[in-house]
Amino acid sequence: MTRFAFSIHARDGKARTGEIAMKRGTIRTPAFMPVGTAATVKAMKVEDVRRTGADIILGNTYHLMLRPGAERVARLGGLHKFMGWDRPILTDSGGYQVMSLSDLRKITEEGVTFASHIDGSRHMLTPERSMEIQRLLGSDIVMAFDECPRADQSRDVIAQSMEMSMRWAKRSRDGFDSGEEHAARSALFGIQQGALDEDLRGISAQKLTEIGFDGYAIGGLAVGEGQEAMFATLDFAPGQLPDDRPRYLMGVGKPDDLIGAVERGVDMFDCVLPSRSGRNGQAFTWNGPLNIRNAKFAEDNDPIDSRCTCPTCGKYSRAYLHHLNKAGEILGAMLMTEHNLSFYQQLMQAMRAAIADGRFAAFAADFRRDYLRK
Amino acid sequence: MTRFAFSIHARDGKARTGEIAMKRGTIRTPAFMPVGTAATVKAMKVEDVRRTGADIILGNTYHLMLRPGAERVARLGGLHKFMGWDRPILTDSGGYQVMSLSDLRKITEEGVTFASHIDGSRHMLTPERSMEIQRLLGSDIVMAFDECPRADQSRDVIAQSMEMSMRWAKRSRDGFDSGEEHAARSALFGIQQGALDEDLRGISAQKLTEIGFDGYAIGGLAVGEGQEAMFATLDFAPGQLPDDRPRYLMGVGKPDDLIGAVERGVDMFDCVLPSRSGRNGQAFTWNGPLNIRNAKFAEDNDPIDSRCTCPTCGKYSRAYLHHLNKAGEILGAMLMTEHNLSFYQQLMQAMRAAIADGRFAAFAADFRRDYLRK
Repeated sequence: MTRFAFSIHARDGKARTGEIAMKRGTIRTPAFMPVGTAATVKAMKVEDVRRTGADIILGNTYHLMLRPGAERVARLGGLHKFMGWDRPILTDSGGYQVMSLSDLRKITEEGVTFASHIDGSRHMLTPERSMEIQRLLGSDIVMAFDECPRADQSRDVIAQSMEMSMRWAKRSRDGFDSGEEHAARSALFGIQQGALDEDLRGISAQKLTEIGFDGYAIGGLAVGEGQEAMFATLDFAPGQLPDDRPRYLMGVGKPDDLIGAVERGVDMFDCVLPSRSGRNGQAFTWNGPLNIRNAKFAEDNDPIDSRCTCPTCGKYSRAYLHHLNKAGEILGAMLMTEHNLSFYQQLMQAMRAAIADGRFAAFAADFRRDYLRK
Repeated sequence: MTRFAFSIHARDGKARTGEIAMKRGTIRTPAFMPVGTAATVKAMKVEDVRRTGADIILGNTYHLMLRPGAERVARLGGLHKFMGWDRPILTDSGGYQVMSLSDLRKITEEGVTFASHIDGSRHMLTPERSMEIQRLLGSDIVMAFDECPRADQSRDVIAQSMEMSMRWAKRSRDGFDSGEEHAARSALFGIQQGALDEDLRGISAQKLTEIGFDGYAIGGLAVGEGQEAMFATLDFAPGQLPDDRPRYLMGVGKPDDLIGAVERGVDMFDCVLPSRSGRNGQAFTWNGPLNIRNAKFAEDNDPIDSRCTCPTCGKYSRAYLHHLNKAGEILGAMLMTEHNLSFYQQLMQAMRAAIADGRFAAFAADFRRDYLRK
């Protein structure tokens, strides 16, 4: 089996569809990766995650290094065995969560020291340690360690942060390559930074390309800039990255975000939105999101979405899901998560088919009409 | 299909094995019924409940009358359709939960008035209303409405309570029979009371038998009297009830309780223990219970129980379940519940096989040696 091979089967405008072949399985693109933060896609059995159509899931370096610990996972046989998922896993580098979740952060050229949000214990993440952790976990797609600056800072701060992230990208490349056995069966992605600035993103893309990665992520978006600014950035950012490599927009997003990003040349996504909002009672449908807690669903015998093919919609009414949510029942979180993750995969499959058929623009227009009601 | 037919296929001492044929399916006895309090067996999909080997589940009248409401469930097509379980459902009468969960109870000959533990709203349960609610839910096995007195009261109080419960049993019979269409496809069980007193239980059994029921429950046990007193009562109580009808010991119990009760002639059980304790980190095994939160399991790559045939034990380590529990992950509750419910069904299946083979005493001795270490 090949280590990593990306093939584009069809193009439609800037949108592309294809697949990434890896030793643990093939990833159809555009791909949505459910988030399995703490070695579990919350409220889902892995066989049910697979049944939604997911080819790959994401694990979080930050959470796993703190609990149960990367060395412990390695002693137990690696993340795949630990959580019972035998297909590809992408792990993030920890850089984003360190910024968003931990306390008492201190950033230097060497790396980041921080206090655990769980027990306050002190830790350090560097490019080298991030690569080591992702190797210990047995990750299939390893992400370079980067700094994720807040988007509301000055251009100078953004530029300096991006420059450091590019030095960290080189150190990540070297650290990854030093784990020869793991490097021979996994892939490393670099992460473009530069916030909303086309020049900075261009410099970042050039530096990453010089180092050379299996794929390229677009980082530093979906941090509060809004969809309009994100799309404006995506109008140029994907084109700055190599055409023959997968492009991964990290932490995105809402269904209409995914459509707009695929339209602009993005191939991969991850986001907690479908799972987290499912636990909170929000269901995605082809006619827009709905909140199952709304009293109008208390005696609604229809499924969440009559077009949806998921097991929840095949078997349960909005009234039942409303009841489970009001009663705080775990099954409510389970069924709503399964619906949402399945809906996202149905959306990806519909996008792949539309690109293959050369009708992506029409598909996107139909989607926006029904989903956004515009 | 027959409405209700109990056939005993084999006997071994006082223990019996057989089946109850009903319109919605056959119940193998001795049977354990998982508890689905609020129209869900907590943290389990119904198809997974069935896969554990459960032939019947229990629903709680008290919880369902308060939320989502019996009339609402009826308008939505009944409890089976609502929760997606098409096999038999036994509903309790609400009598026990009114005593244990509600506030501001007032008991008269007419019935019980109480305040909801959810929102404080006032409600009344009578034998007639309990029958109506269970009919609205579409229950397959309806329980008579009874009073469950505290076990630590005087013989006079226990006797008066039992006498009233027997009058309520007659009113339950009449109320059930008045719902002709539902009565033609479901069954009604009476409930023996009398606490630990052989004479009172004898009187109760006689009165119930005179009224006539499809099956007979042994109520008022497992309320804190301890296993020794419960077994002493079960030495005589099942024999006071008709031999050719199923005997159901309500709210029991631990694995060793079930063995001792089957040994004394009981055919049916329900208990929240396997599901509730699973959510709290306790797993049942053939070698006794274990608490998955114990630090010694943090790097234990063995399954919960190497003899267990459940999906959790087939796929996951104690170390993974330990991690999920420590991290407060919903999947931990899901997998532990599935193991415990599956273990209970494996225990029932082993008892049925041992009775059929005439080796129940040896089976019980082996079980106690391994499970109780004695």
